[in-house]
Order: sequence, then C-alpha cells, then structure tokens
Amino acid sequence: MIYFDNAATTYPKPRSVPCAVYASFRRYGANPGRAGHDLSLATAEQVYFCRKALAEMFGAPDADHVVFTLNCTYALNMAIKGLISPGDHVVTSELEHNAVMRPLEELRRRGKITYTKARVHIGNPAATVAEFERAIRPETRLIVCTHVSNVFGVVLPVEQIGALAARRGLCFVVDCAQSAGVLPVDLKRLRADCLCMPGHKGLYGPMGTGVLICSGARPMRTIIEGGTGSLSKSLDQPDLLPDRFEGGTINVPGIAGLRAGAAFVRATGVEEIHRHEEAVAGEIYAGLSEMKGIKLYTPAPRAGIIAPVFSFNVDGLGSEQTAALLNQAGIAVRAGLHCAPCAHRAFHTLETGTVRVSPGAFNTQRDASRLIKSVFQIAKSRK
Amino acid sequence: MIYFDNAATTYPKPRSVPCAVYASFRRYGANPGRAGHDLSLATAEQVYFCRKALAEMFGAPDADHVVFTLNCTYALNMAIKGLISPGDHVVTSELEHNAVMRPLEELRRRGKITYTKARVHIGNPAATVAEFERAIRPETRLIVCTHVSNVFGVVLPVEQIGALAARRGLCFVVDCAQSAGVLPVDLKRLRADCLCMPGHKGLYGPMGTGVLICSGARPMRTIIEGGTGSLSKSLDQPDLLPDRFEGGTINVPGIAGLRAGAAFVRATGVEEIHRHEEAVAGEIYAGLSEMKGIKLYTPAPRAGIIAPVFSFNVDGLGSEQTAALLNQAGIAVRAGLHCAPCAHRAFHTLETGTVRVSPGAFNTQRDASRLIKSVFQIAKSRK
Repeated sequence: MIYFDNAATTYPKPRSVPCAVYASFRRYGANPGRAGHDLSLATAEQVYFCRKALAEMFGAPDADHVVFTLNCTYALNMAIKGLISPGDHVVTSELEHNAVMRPLEELRRRGKITYTKARVHIGNPAATVAEFERAIRPETRLIVCTHVSNVFGVVLPVEQIGALAARRGLCFVVDCAQSAGVLPVDLKRLRADCLCMPGHKGLYGPMGTGVLICSGARPMRTIIEGGTGSLSKSLDQPDLLPDRFEGGTINVPGIAGLRAGAAFVRATGVEEIHRHEEAVAGEIYAGLSEMKGIKLYTPAPRAGIIAPVFSFNVDGLGSEQTAALLNQAGIAVRAGLHCAPCAHRAFHTLETGTVRVSPGAFNTQRDASRLIKSVFQIAKSRK
Repeated sequence: MIYFDNAATTYPKPRSVPCAVYASFRRYGANPGRAGHDLSLATAEQVYFCRKALAEMFGAPDADHVVFTLNCTYALNMAIKGLISPGDHVVTSELEHNAVMRPLEELRRRGKITYTKARVHIGNPAATVAEFERAIRPETRLIVCTHVSNVFGVVLPVEQIGALAARRGLCFVVDCAQSAGVLPVDLKRLRADCLCMPGHKGLYGPMGTGVLICSGARPMRTIIEGGTGSLSKSLDQPDLLPDRFEGGTINVPGIAGLRAGAAFVRATGVEEIHRHEEAVAGEIYAGLSEMKGIKLYTPAPRAGIIAPVFSFNVDGLGSEQTAALLNQAGIAVRAGLHCAPCAHRAFHTLETGTVRVSPGAFNTQRDASRLIKSVFQIAKSRK
C-alpha cells in the first residue's frame, strides 16, 4: 500500500523506532521516578534522554520543560485550560483543528470564556497578523493557533503572531501538530508559553505519544492530578516541571520509540525532510493541477506559505468515494473533514469534505506518479 | 535482578506483549477511526478486539464502554470530574492513592466540592461499610475508593460499598489499580459507574495504557475535548462512547500489547495468578514475621482481606536505606510513600515510609527465599 496519510500518523516509522520500543520492554521495564532500584533508574535515564533531545530540538529552557502526554490533543487541553481563567477571551484562527476548537467551545458553552476566530490570508502574514490584532479585546488573555492547517497546509505566521502576543502581554500557545519535525519550531523564537505536538507524526515516534513544551514563564493550572513519585506527602499537585503535568505512569515504551524517531529527524534534518516532502507534494499538486475535473483549494506547496499537505476533490465525486477508489488502487489517503470543520467552512468545503494528500519522509517520486495516475483514471471515468 | 515492584508496573511482561507491540508497527500502523483505507480499518479492528476482550473480562455492557486512557490516574480524573458538580460532597477511604486524593483535594481547594475519608477496618467489611455510610451527607454525590491499598494490600469491601451507593442513589467509582487481573472485578456486580485501571500492572500490558470502563448509566462531563474522527462537523465533544473520552490519537501499539497482556491473564486465569502471588507473598511474609527487628503492618496476605502486596520496615533503618541495600543485593523493591500519604497516615508510617513487596506472575519461590535471606542479612547487620 502506498501511504499518503502521514498527517494522521507517519507510516512506516524508521526501523529504529519499533526496535527501540521492543528493547525498552527488557531494558527499561520498570516505572521511572517511582523507585530507587537499578531498573527504575535506568528507565528514568532513558526518559530523560528523550526529554533532553526534544528540549534541544524545540528551544525549551531545559529537559524538565518537556512534558510527555498521550497525544497533541491532551497537550493542547492542558495548555489552554492551564493558562486561562473564567471571564477570559481567547483569539484563535479560522483554520483550527477540533483539538483547539472543541476545548474552546466547551469552555464557551459552560460560560467560562468567549473566543474570536481570526481570518487567515494565505501568503500575506501582515494581513493575518492584523486580523489577530483586531480580534484582541481588553479581556483577551490567550492567543492559540495552529502552525499549519492540517487540511490545507496553510502556514500561519506564528513568529509574528507570537511577537504580537508578547507586545500585548498575552499568553501564546501553538499547535505544532503538522509542523514539528517538518518546519523549524522554536519556543523562544515564537515567544510561546506552550508548544503542543504529537510524537507520532513528524517526529516519527509511536502513536500514544504527545509533547507539551512549556516556557515555565507563567503559572499554569492542572486538569489532571495524581501521583508523580515526587513530594508524595503532599495532596497538592507539585509545581515542579515536568511532574506537574505528568500524573500517573508515563508511556515508557512510547517515549523510547519517540527518542529514536526524534533522532531520525535530527539525523536526516528538518530542512531535508521538508525539502523532500515538498518535492513529492509539489509533484502531485502539479500533476493534479493539469487535470480536468480536479478542484484544488490552495496555491502549490511553497516554503513558508503552504506546507507539504494539501486537499483536492474530483468533480462529481464525494471525497469519501474518491478515497475509497484510491484505496482500491492501493493508495491510502484521508477523506472527509479531518476533524477541522472550521477550516472547511473557511474553504467552503464543509458539506463535501476533501481528499487530503500528506506525504512523509519515506514517500517516493514513484509513489507520487502512482497517485497522479490513479486520480487521473478516477477523474477520466467520471466523464 | 529479582523484581518485586510489580505494584508499580509488572516486569517482565509475557513475551507475547512486546511481540504484539512490535508487530503493530507494521500491521496496525495507521490512525484508527480516522480514515477508510485498509491500514486504518485493520488498526481499528485490532483496537476493537482489545476493547471487546476487556469488556468481557470486566462485565462492561459492550466494547464501546471500554475507553483507553494514558494510565489509571487519567481514568480516575475523568471518572471523578465527569460525575460530580460544584457543591457536591464525595466519600472516599483513608487508604487512597494520590490518583484519587489529589484530584479531590484540588477540587476542594478550588471551592468546588467537599469530601470525607472513611476509616477502613481490616477484615471487617460490615464495620468498613458502616463507616462509609456514616460519612454520607445529603449533598453526597459520589463514593470513590480503591479496591486494594497499593501500600498495605488491604482489600476494601467494594461489592458491599457498591450496594450502599446503589441504595443511596450515589455514583460509584472504583480504583482497580492493584486488583485488575489479580482479583475478580466486575462492573455490574460492583454496581459501579466507572472502573479505573492501569493496563500495565495486573493486565501485563505496556506502560502508557490505562482503561476507563463506564456503565453509561449517567451522563458524564469531559475534561479533555478534541478530534475523535466522529461527528467532525460539530464543535461539541460527541456523546457516544468511547469517542467522548478519547480525544486525539490513541496509543495503538500500547493497546496491541495490552490485548496480548489481557490474553495472557485470561489464559492463565485471574484465580491462578492470585493463588501464585499469594503463595509467594505469603512465604516472604512468613519469613519476615519470624525475624527479629522487622516491623510488619498488616496480617498475612489472605484472600478477600489482604491482597498479595504488603509493607515492612527494618528497625533502625529508613525504608529508602533498606531498599538501597536490597538493590545492592540485586532485588528491586520500592520504598517511601508510594504516592499514598493518607494510607501511611492511617498506619502511622508517614514519616518513615515503608518497604513494599509486590510479587507478580513471574516471581518464584526461589525469588522469595532470596528476598528473605537478604532482609535477614540486613536486619542482622543492624544489631
């Protein structure tokens, strides 16, 4: 099967990832930070190495500011709910995933907060930042937005939005679900309070891993409390990081795999991965743009404007139908709304959904040709 | 290393567990429930098989009532915070882990709830249930308690407490962290709203897996919202289970391993595992109880009264010191407070902590003899 669903989770993983996970069951099989025996200490050390690597990769103050979560959604919930208080107003973009929108909407429905969605102007960072600035009110406390639209690949000017947040004294949270491992992401450069990312997408770790990187500059509330193996005498969740946000046992095998995945990304180079994915996505995009009966929604993937993930539809076919026909041809893509209804509303595709193409580091030009050919045959058979 | 820290996480896992995890990277490498392509459907099927096995094991209405979480702490937070409302009173026991106490204490400090800790009478279920009943107030909404103390092995009469909760119309949540896979646990028999359990202890799955089993009888609020791959057009978290409590990507490799772990437990038999662990724990207990200079805190492990996990101290030695000496002798135990300060307060060990011995399915009588001999040498050298 040719896999073009890397925005859902990357597949395959580098060989080192399942191997590291497998080895962890023997070598790091104890609960880290819970005991002083050798197996527990070895496990804790392995976890620390992963934290350290991610801290270096994403500009965290140190390894302790890297929190392991179940996935990016958990990291976003912890960041958003940790930073805001009742009565606050939040600014977000019109292109958000439900991992941002559903927590905001739940808080709004409970009467805790209000929020405004800022419009995004493709390829015009200044206009986009102006929309965010216009949305700010006296009671605004937080800007939270995605770095890259998971449906349309649109890149948001997060560095300028971070500068705006800093200038206005606002908290800033970035959803790096589609950018971590593919675009440069740096906590300090973005002036962010929190970066949220999955471990299992661009970092090539296993599903079941997510990362919350905190600046530690502001106090944050918890939404989950529990045993941390630290300050156990107290019934209060500890203030110290990462324990504050790591109640209960962490995903040690997953973290061992994530360490291997992140090492693969660093060894290959984020720029090189981006260049490769953009070449593959660009070839597919070019192929589809020359076909009749194909609707594309964005300009072609291009550094800083559109990341290597894009959507299309075949005239007269539902996105699910197109994806099913591609599946029959041995090609995996995702159809529908991709958990991002607001983004589809912005692109007028809420009723139809879209077929999404998301290459990864292991896709080839040959894969691209196969996909183009298969879409061509599907489109032709519609005429 | 001889490993007696199975109450933190079981080690080693059955061979089938790392093998299933490893295989999942190739065979179930896509994101389940997010796409219609073959690899995603195969993954979703694998996840469903694990849900189904756990539903059968623990008396859930069906597979959909089995929710996968990061760990037991997350399951407990979701259950407790999902069921209570501001102004409610909660009854719990004096032997709880911080996975129960810290969420309750956080809610109390925020002025949301009040709670009362009921005394536990070892080997006297009627007296314990009477304590729980006495703690109930008009505004009580929830009883939450552990099935087995993670420090002292004390078994709580959860079936009778569940009957009390049902009689009084209260919600009931059981922390099965130490009992799932070791004692019979059945949602319907316990008349519980939620069972919370780790996947990586008595179920022999990987760290990074937890399970929340819901009766579905009462509506439950969410504390985490996000994309579920279902009802994506809506900004509201879906009501349907398990999606309501599974925002974001689930831990597919971990769940594949958990399925293998649970299969091992079912094939071996919960009764047989309990019998084996009790024999090993009983031998160690008997050996230590004959030694001078050893303090034991409970009666010997005995079905229905004390589960096969217990604590001790060597006179004149801190629990951490004893554990360090045992580590030098190649034996892994855990010392300190085991994230359960309330339990230590009840047993007057809050200042000293205890050395905890927790056997698993793979410990042998030979392991037991080695531990007894090592403790004897440590105690002798103190005189």
